[in-house]
Order: sequence, then structure tokens, then C-alpha cells
Amino acid sequence: MPGTTHQLDGEDTSAGSDGTASPRVVALGGGHGLHASLSALRRVTADVTAVVTVADDGGSSGRLRRELGVLPPGDLRMALSALCGDDEWGHTWSEVIQHRFRSTGELHGHTVGNLLIVALWELLGDSVAGLDWVGQLLGAHGRVLPMSSIPLEIAAEVEGEDPKRPFDVTTVRGQVACASTRGRVRSVSLVPEKPPASPQAVKAIREADWIVFGPGSWFTSVLPHLLVPELAEALVTSPARRAVTLNLSPQQGETDGFRPETHLEVLAAHAPGLNVDVVLADTGTVQEVEPLRDAVADLGGRLVLADVSAQDGAPHHDSEALATVFRKVFAC
Amino acid sequence: MPGTTHQLDGEDTSAGSDGTASPRVVALGGGHGLHASLSALRRVTADVTAVVTVADDGGSSGRLRRELGVLPPGDLRMALSALCGDDEWGHTWSEVIQHRFRSTGELHGHTVGNLLIVALWELLGDSVAGLDWVGQLLGAHGRVLPMSSIPLEIAAEVEGEDPKRPFDVTTVRGQVACASTRGRVRSVSLVPEKPPASPQAVKAIREADWIVFGPGSWFTSVLPHLLVPELAEALVTSPARRAVTLNLSPQQGETDGFRPETHLEVLAAHAPGLNVDVVLADTGTVQEVEPLRDAVADLGGRLVLADVSAQDGAPHHDSEALATVFRKVFAC
Repeated sequence: MPGTTHQLDGEDTSAGSDGTASPRVVALGGGHGLHASLSALRRVTADVTAVVTVADDGGSSGRLRRELGVLPPGDLRMALSALCGDDEWGHTWSEVIQHRFRSTGELHGHTVGNLLIVALWELLGDSVAGLDWVGQLLGAHGRVLPMSSIPLEIAAEVEGEDPKRPFDVTTVRGQVACASTRGRVRSVSLVPEKPPASPQAVKAIREADWIVFGPGSWFTSVLPHLLVPELAEALVTSPARRAVTLNLSPQQGETDGFRPETHLEVLAAHAPGLNVDVVLADTGTVQEVEPLRDAVADLGGRLVLADVSAQDGAPHHDSEALATVFRKVFAC
Repeated sequence: MPGTTHQLDGEDTSAGSDGTASPRVVALGGGHGLHASLSALRRVTADVTAVVTVADDGGSSGRLRRELGVLPPGDLRMALSALCGDDEWGHTWSEVIQHRFRSTGELHGHTVGNLLIVALWELLGDSVAGLDWVGQLLGAHGRVLPMSSIPLEIAAEVEGEDPKRPFDVTTVRGQVACASTRGRVRSVSLVPEKPPASPQAVKAIREADWIVFGPGSWFTSVLPHLLVPELAEALVTSPARRAVTLNLSPQQGETDGFRPETHLEVLAAHAPGLNVDVVLADTGTVQEVEPLRDAVADLGGRLVLADVSAQDGAPHHDSEALATVFRKVFAC
């Protein structure tokens, strides 16, 4: 009987596959970057908590938040999918929640997991409980939490949004608009400005052994957590150690022309007082090591260079290679 | 781990809660009538197979079959929900699949379980496998099968569809139109005329101990099974015994003015050669017993009268009362 093995107690009591205690890891981000991070971390620890941006306003998520007034579920769904169980059951339900309808009608573009998550939210009236139910469905290796309990909007200060006025700074609103701007993003903020943090996310950060930032869309997925006051405070003061995984390439639009160290400078600018213990960068991505090493030292940490990009030439992390590096980093 | 208890083997190997073998029961119908039948039968046996009409063209199901070219999932979903597991897990997922979106937008009226079933169909390319996965999700007490592997349309010969021409017989097409006609339905047929049966449904009928027809929309949910040639042949020739559960009241539209025995006459007219062992009617619904008893005898069976309507005055069956009667009938 399924029910007897699916009791929800709100706690992940799993241990490492070899019976040893696993480090408690909190991964921050959203979208494909967080998916990559979680796909590696699930191999390293049995205790992962993803804390996910809730500012998406595009695609299926954007339609759902506008139509039903809910949190955008897409990045949460993708994180859950990355943590799915290893067996046929976990893989099948992961494929189901990732399945996207294609048609010429009203369902076109909607992802099934988004609809399922929203239904659980409407039914249970509790966003974390709804995500826990989907996690249990997938037999997920860990927990997925929204960074805030309310839907957020991202606003960016952008220089040269209008190519005819390259030095004007304007405010661009919405994740899609910020991520695809033709100008240079200088900083981001949230609307509303001081949103409530998810209490479970604050607790997970305070109790973590490691906190992992990135990879991902730097301004719209990685930095927003630092703009939620209670999360920022927990991230700065937690006794956890902190790792940053840098992107493999600048992202057209929001980080065009960024060097690896520029990412860290922007991170520091959005998070006064944040110390970082380890910055992980792909060897092939870093042209000049010294300026990056200096930027890492400014944050109080050490640089780890490793081959972590996929072998197929696509600009994404290889989850096994990334897992190997995390395993070494966490063991130090 | 969920996966270890959710292996799909396509067979229900469960036994009765007291360890005794359960009668193998096949329930035919669709919609709320089949839901009522299954809600009773799940209390009586651990081996229920629902064989469900796939001709719905209204609501969420109608929109999905038009947009995505799939079987209408609604009646299948409702049957699965009726068979959900007894624990918090089964009840919660049953509520989730029954949850209907309400909005002013494109999702309004869609039921989550319909979208989930359709996603599994698209992903697995197999309607029965998709339903089995949802059954496993719910910890269902039995199996739910479509009566045919292709979406069907119902056509009805209707007398007096146009009130100005009360004796004209016209053809009305579509389940919604047939069920809500202002005329008198004389007979129904399927489009296409000789659809393929679901092989698993034929097998279940051949191997059943009992086959249960109704209650439900008589022309659009109960009779259509008899119009699928392979199903009709299996229903007539199966060594199983056959029970008919009559409706508690005529249905406005398709069975307006029907007496209890009229339902049996219509059943016989659509199923030459069909014998019935037991006809179950609610005591309070039957005004004149003799004509009904005669109609039952014409089909080769006996009439069982019992108080099976809900005590709240609503025109639906009480599932515990119906279960008590089934238990006695199956024990004879």
C-alpha cells in the first residue's frame, strides 16, 4: 500500500547511502542553474534543501501567477524534478511533472507539474505543504522551498536599455524583461521591497553545514535571495560555510561581457557582510586566474578550479564532475 | 522509498481485508453513477475493474479531446477517485485529481486529474498504462479501463427534439446534446459504429464473477458498452453473473418519464441475448412492483428491493447501503 510509506512528517530523515551522516546543504537559485546544482548535490548528500526564487513572470509560470494569483511554480517544479527518486517510480513522475503540453489551444506551453503544484496549493492553502506532497510523490532526495511566501517581481537598474541613449540608467521590471535586456544590468531589487521570507527556508539556512549559491541567471535567480531581509540576515550570519558555483559563460542579456570576477563583485555589492569560503569555477572558463583569485580572497575564500563543464560542448555543468568537486570541498 | 512499493505489474494482487478471496467484479458505466457503484463495490471486494464510457464531449473532457485528440479523461478520473486508497495519501491525491480550477482565464473548469491523465497518455503512448499509473498513485482498490481505445461520439434517435414537431424522429449527436434533449430518446448508437474494445476490458469481463450495470445516465453511460461489438459479445457470453442497479429517478432529458421497467426494456433492446441475474432497485423508488418484477423475469433474473438511497434526501445511492446489498447478492 503506497500510503503506509508516504506519510508526510515534514522532515527528511534519510541518511547517506553508506549509512554515514550527510552534510546539510542548502542550494540557492532558480531555473536550469539550480537544476544543475541539485543534480550534483543529490549525489553528494542525502540532506539537500533548495531555496528557490519566486519572481518568474514568463511562460507557464507567468500565466499561472496572472490567472490564479499564485507563486510562479516553474522553478520549484524544476528543482523537485532534479531531486526525484532513482527508481522507475521517481523517474516516471519526474517526467510527468516536466511534461509540457503542445497544441494550438489554451493548454499550449503549460507544464503538468506546474498545474499539479498549483492545485495542491489551492487545496491545502500552504505552499510548503504542497511542495512537500510533490516531493513525496517523486520520492525526492531533499526538500524544495520557495524563498518567499508571496509572488515577487524583479526590477533592474539597467544602463543603455535604449541603444540610442547608451549611458541612461532606467528601471526594467519583470524577470523576463530583466533577463533579456539589451542594456547592462547594474543592480536588482524586489517588488515588494522587503518581502517575507519562507520561515522554513530561514531555518534550513541557519541549520546548514554548507550553503551553495549558483550557478544560474545571476541577477534574476542567484541574487534575489539576498534581497529578502530575513534570508539575507540568515545567509550572512549562519554558521554554515558558503560556496559559490560560477557560471560557465556570461548570459546574453543580463551578464553580457561579465568576467568571472564580475559575478563576485556583483554578489558582494548585493550582500554586504557576506563571507564566502569557496568559489568553484570551471578551468576552461577562466582566462585569467589572478583577478579571479583576488576577488575570491576579497570575499574571504579560496578558489577551486576544476573541469566541471559538460563534455558534449553544451554550456552546462556535468553533474558527476560537479558532484566530485562538491564531495572534496565538503570533506575539507 | 516510494518506488519499492509502487512497482507496476499490471495486475491487482490484493486480497480481501479478511484474507479471503474476493469476487472479481466488473462495473460498467460512467460519471456520477459509476462513482456511486464503485464507492459501494470497493467495500465489498478487493478485485474491482471499472470499464468506463469514453464518449463524453462536455466540460473539461470535451475541451481536452478537441484540443489534444485524446480520450475524454473525466469519467475515468472520477472512477479512479472512487477507488482511492483509504489513508491520508489516497484521500489527498484523490482530492487533488478531483480539484477543478476556477478563474476568469483559460484554465477555468479544467480538472487537475484530467490534465494529469492526459500527460501520462502523451508520455507513455498507452491509455491503459497511464490509468494504471494514476491508480498506483492513488493506491486504488482496483483498476479503471476505458471501454474503447479511441474517443467515441454518441448519437441518439430522438422523438420530438423539436417541440413543434413532437412525433418527428431526428438524430442528435454528442453526449451533452443527447443527455439534455427536450425530446424522448429511443435508442443510441456510437460513432464510429463498431469501435475497437479495450482488450483488457474484454479480458476482465470474461474472467469476472459478477458484472454490474448502472446506475447512471442510461443512454449515454450505461448502454454504450453494449454497442462495442467485442464488449457486447463478452458481456453476453461471459460465465459471470450479471446485476443491474437501477437509477433512483428518471433523468431529466434522456430518461424523462421512464418507469423502472422501461430502463430494463431499453437495456434488452440494445443487448439481444443478454441475461441478467439480479436487478437491484430502491424500495422507495418503485411505485408498482409487479410490472418491474415481470420485466426482470423477462431478462431471466430476480428483483432485489432494498433501501439504498441516501438518507439526506439527495437523489443518489448510499454507498454503505448499496455495499450491504451487493455483499448479500454476491454471497448467493
